Amino acid sequence: MTHTTTRRNVLRGSAATAAVLATAGAATAPASAAGPGSRRERGPRIGILLYDGFSLLDPTGPAEVLSRLPDATVTMIAEQRGPVRTDTGDVAVVAERSLTEVDRLDVLLVPGGGNRGIIAAMGNRALLEWIRKIHRRSQWTTSVCTGSLILAAAGLLDGRRATTYWASAEYLEETFDVTYEAQRYVRSGKIITAAGVSAGIDMALHLSALIAGEATARAVQLAVEYDPQPPFDSGNAAEADARLKKHALELLERSAV
Amino acid sequence: MTHTTTRRNVLRGSAATAAVLATAGAATAPASAAGPGSRRERGPRIGILLYDGFSLLDPTGPAEVLSRLPDATVTMIAEQRGPVRTDTGDVAVVAERSLTEVDRLDVLLVPGGGNRGIIAAMGNRALLEWIRKIHRRSQWTTSVCTGSLILAAAGLLDGRRATTYWASAEYLEETFDVTYEAQRYVRSGKIITAAGVSAGIDMALHLSALIAGEATARAVQLAVEYDPQPPFDSGNAAEADARLKKHALELLERSAV
Repeated sequence: MTHTTTRRNVLRGSAATAAVLATAGAATAPASAAGPGSRRERGPRIGILLYDGFSLLDPTGPAEVLSRLPDATVTMIAEQRGPVRTDTGDVAVVAERSLTEVDRLDVLLVPGGGNRGIIAAMGNRALLEWIRKIHRRSQWTTSVCTGSLILAAAGLLDGRRATTYWASAEYLEETFDVTYEAQRYVRSGKIITAAGVSAGIDMALHLSALIAGEATARAVQLAVEYDPQPPFDSGNAAEADARLKKHALELLERSAV
Repeated sequence: MTHTTTRRNVLRGSAATAAVLATAGAATAPASAAGPGSRRERGPRIGILLYDGFSLLDPTGPAEVLSRLPDATVTMIAEQRGPVRTDTGDVAVVAERSLTEVDRLDVLLVPGGGNRGIIAAMGNRALLEWIRKIHRRSQWTTSVCTGSLILAAAGLLDGRRATTYWASAEYLEETFDVTYEAQRYVRSGKIITAAGVSAGIDMALHLSALIAGEATARAVQLAVEYDPQPPFDSGNAAEADARLKKHALELLERSAV
């Protein structure tokens, strides 16, 4: 196993090794341990709201992207600290902070979820009140997928343009004073809503440019090697027939707990 | 808040609601609670290996995709049960099972991580032995990003073609008997390696078709609305200049703990 002792750096872009090694000594402690005045304390504070039944990629795609911004902290937040389980019941992500522990964020992101999780979140007064409180002083308030329904339930989307999961567009427009736009992400003032699940990655890159400039956002895109090459072309609901839509919704329902 | 009581289903594709509701009663319990003979017991058993310092999107992108396959279970696995922290230190995903609790999987996925996590994993004999054991009987053994270095350290890639994170290609070829291919994912026998981070999503859709057929994979793609529209075009290392590569690696190093 000589490879583990003779090579100290497995990431080496051509001509970049020296630069990387020069910055390696500046690595900081985890966010939860960052004390006042630490470097990370000065970067954007990004908070992601978790709730029982969220969809795994909705928070984790943007978290991967946004965590690469200089000095950023990404904190998973839920009603209580501890594991929060996804819509399939298979996976749990740890909430590092409870709602009562977080008064202010530069960026709030609300992920989407399945029917059960979304309906519960839309009816959770404590959750909606916390979202309104954070939104008052946030720099950006964002959502992915059906997370926009939660923002709408909190009253944040009144009179605004927004997007959501393709199968929830009708519900969004019928239920709230919102104009749906079939875009990958929609910015309205300081609110940015993204379309379904994987759209959070595109939105997070756009947001990265707003926060840290386009040069940094481009470097983040390369850092996560986001050069998408889907093997199929079936991800756009506007081009999908009824059979495919039905099949997709059946898979979602069947995988949900 | 009448919206929460008058609407019971926020996901409604045109003409698909009835079909969705018809299947809703068949929802199953979480994987950990599925008893012998339950429906989920018969679907593909997908296991994802976590280790300290993994990159968040590497396991979670594929997990989102693969969890939508009919009757699939996705289980996060690590040396010990409990929270496993990412390369940035910000986020923890819960390992539901320890290595000793898992003898067999239909699909093994090994995610990538930062320098620290990858070097530790490549030198972890228990981890490598478990990977070899699972691989012997797996239907598919897969990796994302620098996860291919861990497969290589386990001896699984000897004499094979494979891909990895763009900045680790040189290391992979110099250190192991592997031919690097700059593809989004590379299949060699029953091993499929994916390129960096977000490439795991593309690979997982390809794998979905191999497991459940193309029609289902296409429906999964729509289910996660994977119609990527990156705001920039900087995700392909082959088209990136030295400055951009350097910037990307600096961001990775700076965000790592």
